[in-house]
Amino acid sequence: MEINEILNWRYATKKMTGAKVPQNKIDIIVKSVQLAPTSVGFQAFHLYVIEDEALRQTIFEKSCQQTQVVEGSHLLVFAARTEITDAEVDNYMNLVATTRNIPVESLNGYKGMVASFKQKTEQEYFDWTARQAYIAFSFALVAAAVENVDATPIEGFSPPVMDEILGLKEKGLKSVVLIALGYRDEANDKLAHAPKVRKPISELVTVI
Amino acid sequence: MEINEILNWRYATKKMTGAKVPQNKIDIIVKSVQLAPTSVGFQAFHLYVIEDEALRQTIFEKSCQQTQVVEGSHLLVFAARTEITDAEVDNYMNLVATTRNIPVESLNGYKGMVASFKQKTEQEYFDWTARQAYIAFSFALVAAAVENVDATPIEGFSPPVMDEILGLKEKGLKSVVLIALGYRDEANDKLAHAPKVRKPISELVTVI
Repeated sequence: MEINEILNWRYATKKMTGAKVPQNKIDIIVKSVQLAPTSVGFQAFHLYVIEDEALRQTIFEKSCQQTQVVEGSHLLVFAARTEITDAEVDNYMNLVATTRNIPVESLNGYKGMVASFKQKTEQEYFDWTARQAYIAFSFALVAAAVENVDATPIEGFSPPVMDEILGLKEKGLKSVVLIALGYRDEANDKLAHAPKVRKPISELVTVI
Repeated sequence: MEINEILNWRYATKKMTGAKVPQNKIDIIVKSVQLAPTSVGFQAFHLYVIEDEALRQTIFEKSCQQTQVVEGSHLLVFAARTEITDAEVDNYMNLVATTRNIPVESLNGYKGMVASFKQKTEQEYFDWTARQAYIAFSFALVAAAVENVDATPIEGFSPPVMDEILGLKEKGLKSVVLIALGYRDEANDKLAHAPKVRKPISELVTVI
């Protein structure tokens, strides 16, 4: 496959038809989120896959007035961790040890590195976890395009209201970015056939 | 193609052979960076593609002690904008108008939205542009994997030293994340055949 043909096909869909994205394609997109790399492998984020119509309607009314939230069939909410706990670090080390069949004690140096994130302030930690969530979000955008599923990446929403709706604060999470998944309404989306606007490579990139 | 087979093939390569990534593959990866979506389409980042060996050696010695910087053939440095200027907003509006063949005056509402980012503090603006740079960085990681090019995503470096080496401050940029591109040294990289460590989907994802 030509990756850039696929990336050129995708666009931030403005109008969706309401057609439902099949479960096998949702599974592929979710799997790409799981496979996304994160700093030190810590995956300090959580993904909410919201299919429930009533909940998407509530989100549309209260947190995000973009119609794709309800015109799509699934809403992905990427939430980043706001805190790091000892239990979380221990669980992760056990996961590494189990997956690679090595003694957990052999990971003490690595554990020290991960645990050192506890020295960050809450804001610094969240800035870092939010960036990790953006990697997962980006992988989901590419996976959706590969599967010919349309997607609208959304930063324009109220995170505090979203956090309230999903009860994220109690879980040590904050919502950072969304994707509405569905199918483009080619007849009614003015942007469906608009040329993509991008800075020329000569302006965006410096080769040394 | 099976996107998740490709994402499973990639890993944060620890040891590279020194073999050179061909220019046509670099071009594909750079193109994916150009095609990466950004909030309001503003692309407030810059990509440095560093092939020069002496410069990579300097970066290795002074900013990033990871051997892939010199064992790979190319280093990508993603830098995010620290400020927003009127000229930048005007240039962008002209780019949209020219690309879509519409009068620039028809974009006044859109322009107001983009210009409203000037109300952000410098820290808020950089937090936002850094996230956009992470989208481009993520797209480059996927494009490299599709092209069977190995990549090491790197957060562990000194951004102030990198900024000094590349003269980024004068350009209103700060380095945020790197990718070393090259080819895995299968015989000597212990992680080349290690199973990928990922949280189970049941823990990472909630379906509603």
